[in-house]
Amino acid sequence: MKKALLAAIIGTSTLLASGTAAAQVKPEDVIKFRKGVYQVIGWHVRPMGAMVKGQMPYDQAEFVRNAEIVAMMSTVAPHAFVAGSDKGDTRAKPEIWSDAAGFKKVMDGFQAEAGKLVQVAKTATTVDQVRGQFGALGKACGACHDNYRNK
Amino acid sequence: MKKALLAAIIGTSTLLASGTAAAQVKPEDVIKFRKGVYQVIGWHVRPMGAMVKGQMPYDQAEFVRNAEIVAMMSTVAPHAFVAGSDKGDTRAKPEIWSDAAGFKKVMDGFQAEAGKLVQVAKTATTVDQVRGQFGALGKACGACHDNYRNK
Repeated sequence: MKKALLAAIIGTSTLLASGTAAAQVKPEDVIKFRKGVYQVIGWHVRPMGAMVKGQMPYDQAEFVRNAEIVAMMSTVAPHAFVAGSDKGDTRAKPEIWSDAAGFKKVMDGFQAEAGKLVQVAKTATTVDQVRGQFGALGKACGACHDNYRNK
Repeated sequence: MKKALLAAIIGTSTLLASGTAAAQVKPEDVIKFRKGVYQVIGWHVRPMGAMVKGQMPYDQAEFVRNAEIVAMMSTVAPHAFVAGSDKGDTRAKPEIWSDAAGFKKVMDGFQAEAGKLVQVAKTATTVDQVRGQFGALGKACGACHDNYRNK
């Protein structure tokens, strides 16, 4: 019943691309997947942050690798907010679905800044050259965390 | 103390590339990250499996997208087995670290087959053309699950 309801909701979702596959999964599985996506994002943002803050030596290849993973995950993230996955062990705010246009905007911003960071890092031989774009990515992250995530 | 110990262990790890960053994290955080990686992998393997089994219509672009994410995650996975992260809420077997060469071999196999699947899918206009390589990826997954993961 719950599954059928989720499938029905997903059918009308404007966010979700891979509706058919997702229609077969339970909300709690979507939430696990979503948390997984953000675990992977966080893991790779952290060393970039440490380099930018001078807590770790700047390693361009490693910075690019981290940025590429975050960029790919930024394209995965929107798929992790399947309608109906707002209940349970999650900090996702209902506004993600009630304000779908606003949420799409911050998600698009995340993708744009993450993609730019890869490009910038590929030619950045010093940490000073990535600092600005890393900051822009941080702002894009914050735009979502501040408005669409519970404390 | 625990953190210092982990850092010491990591220092001698042959597996880990990004040692400096990982040295600052707790084993339980490594485990969370590792589970996140496999959540992302599983989420994207499933629709490919459904297409191969005929449970979902074959969609080449979507198949390629899923395969690309799995391929990238196959390069991330080895970083998620930081030495010292064998205790806690994990099914990782001690053999991952005691048989590092064997584990590297199955991880390399995973990367090779996942990478090949992307290449195959890019030119596969029918599901029959991806079935064989998807099976090869499944075998590569199993090689690790059977030997390095507890039931």
